[in-house]
Amino acid sequence: MITVQEAEKLILDSIGEIDPETVAIDAALGRCLREPINADRALPPFDRATMDGIAINSSTYNTGQRKFKIGGTAPAGAPQQALPELKACLEIMTGAPLPQMADCVVKIEDLEIKDDTAILPDGLQLDFHTAVHAQGSDCKSGAELLSPNRKLTAKEIAIAASVGKAEVSVSRSPRIAIVSTGDELVSIEQTPEPHQIRRSNDLTLSTALVSAGFPNVERVHIPDDQEQIETQLRELMQRCDSIILAGGVSKGKYDYIPETLAKLGVSIRFQWVSQRPGKPMWYGQFSRDGARLPVFALPGNPVSCFTCLRRYVIPALEKWIGLPPAKPCYAKLNHDLTFKPELTLFLPAVAEPKASGELWATPALFNTSGDFVSVAKTDGFIELPKSRKIFPEGEAFQFYPWPI
Amino acid sequence: MITVQEAEKLILDSIGEIDPETVAIDAALGRCLREPINADRALPPFDRATMDGIAINSSTYNTGQRKFKIGGTAPAGAPQQALPELKACLEIMTGAPLPQMADCVVKIEDLEIKDDTAILPDGLQLDFHTAVHAQGSDCKSGAELLSPNRKLTAKEIAIAASVGKAEVSVSRSPRIAIVSTGDELVSIEQTPEPHQIRRSNDLTLSTALVSAGFPNVERVHIPDDQEQIETQLRELMQRCDSIILAGGVSKGKYDYIPETLAKLGVSIRFQWVSQRPGKPMWYGQFSRDGARLPVFALPGNPVSCFTCLRRYVIPALEKWIGLPPAKPCYAKLNHDLTFKPELTLFLPAVAEPKASGELWATPALFNTSGDFVSVAKTDGFIELPKSRKIFPEGEAFQFYPWPI
Repeated sequence: MITVQEAEKLILDSIGEIDPETVAIDAALGRCLREPINADRALPPFDRATMDGIAINSSTYNTGQRKFKIGGTAPAGAPQQALPELKACLEIMTGAPLPQMADCVVKIEDLEIKDDTAILPDGLQLDFHTAVHAQGSDCKSGAELLSPNRKLTAKEIAIAASVGKAEVSVSRSPRIAIVSTGDELVSIEQTPEPHQIRRSNDLTLSTALVSAGFPNVERVHIPDDQEQIETQLRELMQRCDSIILAGGVSKGKYDYIPETLAKLGVSIRFQWVSQRPGKPMWYGQFSRDGARLPVFALPGNPVSCFTCLRRYVIPALEKWIGLPPAKPCYAKLNHDLTFKPELTLFLPAVAEPKASGELWATPALFNTSGDFVSVAKTDGFIELPKSRKIFPEGEAFQFYPWPI
Repeated sequence: MITVQEAEKLILDSIGEIDPETVAIDAALGRCLREPINADRALPPFDRATMDGIAINSSTYNTGQRKFKIGGTAPAGAPQQALPELKACLEIMTGAPLPQMADCVVKIEDLEIKDDTAILPDGLQLDFHTAVHAQGSDCKSGAELLSPNRKLTAKEIAIAASVGKAEVSVSRSPRIAIVSTGDELVSIEQTPEPHQIRRSNDLTLSTALVSAGFPNVERVHIPDDQEQIETQLRELMQRCDSIILAGGVSKGKYDYIPETLAKLGVSIRFQWVSQRPGKPMWYGQFSRDGARLPVFALPGNPVSCFTCLRRYVIPALEKWIGLPPAKPCYAKLNHDLTFKPELTLFLPAVAEPKASGELWATPALFNTSGDFVSVAKTDGFIELPKSRKIFPEGEAFQFYPWPI
């Protein structure tokens, strides 16, 4: 049995980087960028008005002039103009290029217009580039605006679009099979017999993966039959980039999975982790076309399954698509806790951000690791290290938010 | 000019709750639940083994018996069996119903099997329901497991699926039009003239809304032409549930938007908010089929636009679909700040969660509100109240994470 830290390291060390592909920028949300995004010209590309108002030369105002004849209008989207003379002004719109000879913008709220003349009050603070976003002040042409290996959220897409990247290179989205097993599981639509329960792990895992940015997921249910398990797993290993199994990984007589996977050429990296919940967890890899592809076999218990997905699978998939590790998050325990087994404890907890800037975690009271109803009230789990037994109120531990 | 708090209240108070609709559970991720989810039977529905091992009656072990004849196997997914006699055992798999006469499970690691007999060591702690998840211990039949008006993430979907909800009632996803205007804007594919820039606000807003859980978004660009603006806005008001305009809301001569919206029957609720960035922000509503539908007109400046979307539009849409307000998050300022204008300051900042459980925010250094490149390095913004000018290091303020 290995520790949580050893399991994490074994998984992450074994994961490479998936191939890139090119997608349209408006389909790139949530993907991992795989090329640098550079400025194709200085930004902004011209001295740009940041207010609606008039463009003047500040020296005229600062030497006493208060009335400015309006020589025309500089709208956004028109080529640069020029002041008719140094003492005149142009009306100017936000986003328009500053006219030649002008060096600042006086905002419309600060002036009065009478008979084609703008009248300015005393006391305005007008200098070179007041209300002007100077050419090249954001960046020079060719500057790297975004480096590779970062997630494309709305703000990164804004930048790529602004420099003309209609297409971008991103990591391919891995095709993931979620395999559930267990003859006690019936479909959601069915009314289960007393000894049966409805299948929900596969849907929990697939929706959690979609939330976490992995939409390319399919669900497969296989009965507890060794032959069917082998046939279907072989087919999935040809077609999918990763397989996540829910259930069938403990030491029970009907748990054919580890054996079958080994037979199909999956090499086991570890089985059993000193953690609660989730001890009977299994990790392996198989080769296809020179790539090493991950197989996760998670415990069938719903809470264990969900916790292991969050703790191990999602970070591994994030590394695979090229993302850096997520910033760890920490929360203070809301009451004293004692936990005696020599296991790392993953404890579902409600996160309470305080006005002080602190995050506190209130562990959920729950019966057993099968109690998913209590878990649904929580925001994530705190991880209590196995080296200790007593965890005092107010001490901070790492907190893992659930996928939302 | 109204305050940030007044603007927020005016918007939220004006927003009702959108109609519900019924969707398949596997298409319900991210939607707002609109019905209670109740247990259709006790959970778990039977005394359920939580380990692989043998099922025995603990009294036999506790009165000295160590060898148990194996009378058969109780797999998960099979009806409840019974011990052949009180002194015997059944092999049992995780998830299987506890056999009649048995009251606990001995895990496989704790026993040895020889010739159809399980041999147990001394010193095991075996009691009534050891390694058993008792029937009804999670909840009674009919108990409310999920209340309406909460977001369906993976864990809520797990619960709905487990009680047989193949379909659920959720809030309809509002159809949102993102309207960009401005003749200075060219498409991403075009090479802009010096006075032009590429259109990115519409894509930023639409991808941010998708991230925030509003996928039903379309983008429309309208040139700065009063007639075209009127025609297209009228058509959008017939077809969409909400309109978000980027640009065209300040006091410039070519900003026809507020005037046109008023003409089309949009009643203005406010214009101008005492905030930086984002002062020229506009909010209104129009009526259709008895519903009041929101119109947001955001400043054209990219940073202002994005900030106002996060600060006002996303919370309003969340309320509209029936979600409770998000838990506010707070971060401590990483260095002293002074800001003199009588405006609330939205300051993009890098969030740094510390191992102490505190969240710290390092404000980005940036040139002007047009500098989106600096914003892309941040995780959200802190809100500094307009009532003050000095903000000391270490004080906590509300932090709004960007959509991710």
